[in-house]
Amino acid sequence: MVAELSDKEFAIQRIQEVNDALASGMYVLARRMLHNTPACDVALLLESSPPKTRAVIWQLVDADEHGDILEELSEEVQKSIIRQMAPEKLAAATEGMDTDDLAYVLRGLPDPVYQEVLKSMDSQDRQRAEMALSYDEDSAGGMMNTDTITLRPEVSIDVVLRYLRLKGELPEATDKLYVVNRDDRFIGEISLASLLTVEPSLLVSEVMQADVQGIPANLEDTEVAKLFERHDWVSAPVIDDDNRLLGRITIDDVVDIIREEAQHSMLSMAGLEDDEDTFAPVVTSARRRSVWLAVNLVTALLAAAVSSMFEDILAQMAILAILNTIVPSMGGIAGSQTLTLVIRAMAMGHISQSNSRWLIGKELAIGAINGAIWAILIAAVVALWKQDWVIGGIIAFAMMMNLLAAGLAGVTIPLILKRFNIDPALAGGVILTTVTDVVGIFAFLGTATLLLT
Amino acid sequence: MVAELSDKEFAIQRIQEVNDALASGMYVLARRMLHNTPACDVALLLESSPPKTRAVIWQLVDADEHGDILEELSEEVQKSIIRQMAPEKLAAATEGMDTDDLAYVLRGLPDPVYQEVLKSMDSQDRQRAEMALSYDEDSAGGMMNTDTITLRPEVSIDVVLRYLRLKGELPEATDKLYVVNRDDRFIGEISLASLLTVEPSLLVSEVMQADVQGIPANLEDTEVAKLFERHDWVSAPVIDDDNRLLGRITIDDVVDIIREEAQHSMLSMAGLEDDEDTFAPVVTSARRRSVWLAVNLVTALLAAAVSSMFEDILAQMAILAILNTIVPSMGGIAGSQTLTLVIRAMAMGHISQSNSRWLIGKELAIGAINGAIWAILIAAVVALWKQDWVIGGIIAFAMMMNLLAAGLAGVTIPLILKRFNIDPALAGGVILTTVTDVVGIFAFLGTATLLLT
Repeated sequence: MVAELSDKEFAIQRIQEVNDALASGMYVLARRMLHNTPACDVALLLESSPPKTRAVIWQLVDADEHGDILEELSEEVQKSIIRQMAPEKLAAATEGMDTDDLAYVLRGLPDPVYQEVLKSMDSQDRQRAEMALSYDEDSAGGMMNTDTITLRPEVSIDVVLRYLRLKGELPEATDKLYVVNRDDRFIGEISLASLLTVEPSLLVSEVMQADVQGIPANLEDTEVAKLFERHDWVSAPVIDDDNRLLGRITIDDVVDIIREEAQHSMLSMAGLEDDEDTFAPVVTSARRRSVWLAVNLVTALLAAAVSSMFEDILAQMAILAILNTIVPSMGGIAGSQTLTLVIRAMAMGHISQSNSRWLIGKELAIGAINGAIWAILIAAVVALWKQDWVIGGIIAFAMMMNLLAAGLAGVTIPLILKRFNIDPALAGGVILTTVTDVVGIFAFLGTATLLLT
Repeated sequence: MVAELSDKEFAIQRIQEVNDALASGMYVLARRMLHNTPACDVALLLESSPPKTRAVIWQLVDADEHGDILEELSEEVQKSIIRQMAPEKLAAATEGMDTDDLAYVLRGLPDPVYQEVLKSMDSQDRQRAEMALSYDEDSAGGMMNTDTITLRPEVSIDVVLRYLRLKGELPEATDKLYVVNRDDRFIGEISLASLLTVEPSLLVSEVMQADVQGIPANLEDTEVAKLFERHDWVSAPVIDDDNRLLGRITIDDVVDIIREEAQHSMLSMAGLEDDEDTFAPVVTSARRRSVWLAVNLVTALLAAAVSSMFEDILAQMAILAILNTIVPSMGGIAGSQTLTLVIRAMAMGHISQSNSRWLIGKELAIGAINGAIWAILIAAVVALWKQDWVIGGIIAFAMMMNLLAAGLAGVTIPLILKRFNIDPALAGGVILTTVTDVVGIFAFLGTATLLLT
């Protein structure tokens, strides 16, 4: 029980042990430990290691484990490893890989190596790979495997049962067999459960579920995931435009998509790429993150430029300079709460034309309520702290305005971005902060200028 | 194909149509449309509707659909609906529900209603519910269903096959049957695939996989999800402390956990509760969000208090007031990038003692590189804009310091919080911003005070 269930602690402990062995130069010991570690744990170990350690570990792993480990690695770590492998070794590692993983690995290669790997493959693998590569990486065709078992409608269940017994083993995660006609067109499916429970003398055509539709090969992967979630599928057939059966998608690949999609929003909101590898080399990471910092610098300078318009009053009253950050900061927080919720609701398919107006109304109402509460509070704090009721009133007014603006911007910015096909998770935050900064500063310093000069 | 595959657009269109029908008071039409809508789409419609519309839709839905729809609803929306249902109706709706959903619904009820619902259930449902309720909601026991099919080791496969044929139907998502001994202790499992492929004269004990471990009923749900992901399971047995088989967990429930867990970090980072319902009533939402605004107000006041320490120089030089927000803002962005990555890496089990020191080094290096780049750039911008090289130099120095602090804080804050069992996604952001605000202001205004007065 322990070995199975505290997996995670085990993996962490193993990482520690392997690292200790490596650090003390005990490579033979480390190799033996790695030999006894399942592929999914070696993958975790690689993902949790800095670049140099990664290279050493990869050297120590048995070559015939390479394929299994590559399948388990996350995209970016996988890429960093296959780029350093010799083409023959890579071809050997990909032997017998699932079609989708095979295509995935090949896509990560520079063109000359790619051609070489393709050449060193056996013809069946090459064919499968070329088929999968003809579809977009993020489509049903790019996710599918070709290990389907197909039946003809006119045979009896009894024949099917004998056939399966002869076959001896079914591909992993097989819960259904697919029924195709003479032209390979998908016409229905039979679950293993029904094979086990129906009368064996019946024909496949009498037992099969015929009202099932295959997934078109060019459907986006996130849509595939939604279908799986809605219908609680374990596997589903993939078809081409002519309804010909091409392969199948299994739930384990869908789970990866679901996790990636859910993490995508969080990473995008921090201006990070999807697959950012925590242990990527310093320069790679620094370059990636600098893009977002550049965008933010522009925003920050814009806010400074707005403050700069009020230089006169700032020069007269240092207290305004001190309080100037409070209103933009609160607006930014309130706005990003709304933005986060709307982005999530969009991803779940909850936002439509009919409810977005209601939502804007709701967020404005929340802005008004919270604006009023924090306006009163901040006025009281400022009045007590700085003994100045006028400035307390001014900051209260600015707070109210900015929380209303934040609520409005938090809903409308993602709606507008989506209409222009821009990812709201990626761009929404910066635009929102710009709005709340500018409105906050204008409302505070502008009102102060009107009333105090 | 269309009906099946553009599900999502269909659902959105249907939402629009039902809303139109409701808005124009055509309740009979709306009722008919709802009648023809699958439970998962009605759930989506409810989740996408404001509170009032929700109540109306619920009234119009067929009562015998209530159970199926409740099963599909997200936690918070489900709660808001069951709180308004009469206990008898609720008892009727829960009839035949999966054990885990049943327990889920009951947990959402106030105590008197709960007792009443429990009383109106038939004894079998009540027993199942009480068993599930005895486990924590977020544990394997709380997620499991009791619809397992069990076999004895000493019978032959042939007998099993005859038994299944007699039974006629298997529970949903059944991919394995479980083998238990006389004391109901779990001793192994047999996949449907192997039932179909092995020699029927063999005994269950000869065919079963015996090296499988059940999931302990008190294992946390997120750990259960990790096991499913690592082993690509479709279903798995749940056992008690004495290894007695209690039920099974299926992948569809695990997928929900995976999505929730991945969304949890994003929502927490914006200070929102897990299940915040986008269409919750205004007052509920306003109250929830105000907690986070209150925390942020304290942070903002703290930053203002730090600025206040430099009131003299701010009073002398308004330009410092104008530029004062830039360094804290850049530090906040850089820090939250690091924080986001570390939080994600922690959730994936990538962070251990052996690599956290490397990671701190890496983030400090990134801070130094990006700090240097943006320091030079901001110095140039300020020098050109305000014709002041000294202040350009001061802001460059402050930028450098703050990006280093951001990198360090971005790694160490979540590590420290985790050691104290505080959710880094929830508390990390505020603490980080406080650090980058304080360091940024101190570095900028402090250096300015030293050099310019």
